[in-house]
Amino acid sequence: MKDNNCIFCKLAAGDIPTNSIYEDEDFKVILDVGPATRGHALILPKDHYPNLYELSNETASKIMILAKKMATEMTEKLACDGFNLIQNNGEAAGQTIFHFHIHLIPRYNNDSVGSLWEPGVTTQEDLEKIKNMF
Amino acid sequence: MKDNNCIFCKLAAGDIPTNSIYEDEDFKVILDVGPATRGHALILPKDHYPNLYELSNETASKIMILAKKMATEMTEKLACDGFNLIQNNGEAAGQTIFHFHIHLIPRYNNDSVGSLWEPGVTTQEDLEKIKNMF
Repeated sequence: MKDNNCIFCKLAAGDIPTNSIYEDEDFKVILDVGPATRGHALILPKDHYPNLYELSNETASKIMILAKKMATEMTEKLACDGFNLIQNNGEAAGQTIFHFHIHLIPRYNNDSVGSLWEPGVTTQEDLEKIKNMF
Repeated sequence: MKDNNCIFCKLAAGDIPTNSIYEDEDFKVILDVGPATRGHALILPKDHYPNLYELSNETASKIMILAKKMATEMTEKLACDGFNLIQNNGEAAGQTIFHFHIHLIPRYNNDSVGSLWEPGVTTQEDLEKIKNMF
């Protein structure tokens, strides 16, 4: 289902021109206009899901197969040295457009993105407390 | 297929004790011992795939459904404010263990991870050059 107030719905549907590098019945892949690195792209489902929590299982079952296909093709064509998939949910996680999407980020040796996070320090006691919540 | 020289294969198989918060026939989810944030966990397929490029389509079709389930449960139990999925391929992308895994990173307002990357600047000319490669 498309949400008529959503910019990513409009880009995925082709209502607004974009730089698309792949399209099928369910998805469009477009180049990010503020790229983290050269070739940074986004997988957009054509249906509107605000985030991972609300993604349909059918779309979830297809999207990682597409991510693999895109990563393979982009790595070959862009000659990048590595590849990140990043998917953000909520403002606290850096989500700015509330239509589920996966960032496809080609990585290059010594690019400006650098380390995505620094490993933290914890204790086995803390880890067991968390484990026991599940 | 398990790789007997791979630490994540051993953790997923239960050959080495770990802090597991979920397990089924195909996957184990464990707490990261150097967590980016409280509750940082990893989805490990039990079969050995070095990276996304070599992931089986069958595993790919199941893993995002599990990521959704884990994100939902972890967000509720940890009371986090947002959630990132991050998947790294190659040293240039921050991969350190060469067994495919997805980082499940609960995010909290004003946590120490902050912004994962800064948007870059590009031109429509550059984007078209890239688009025309696909």
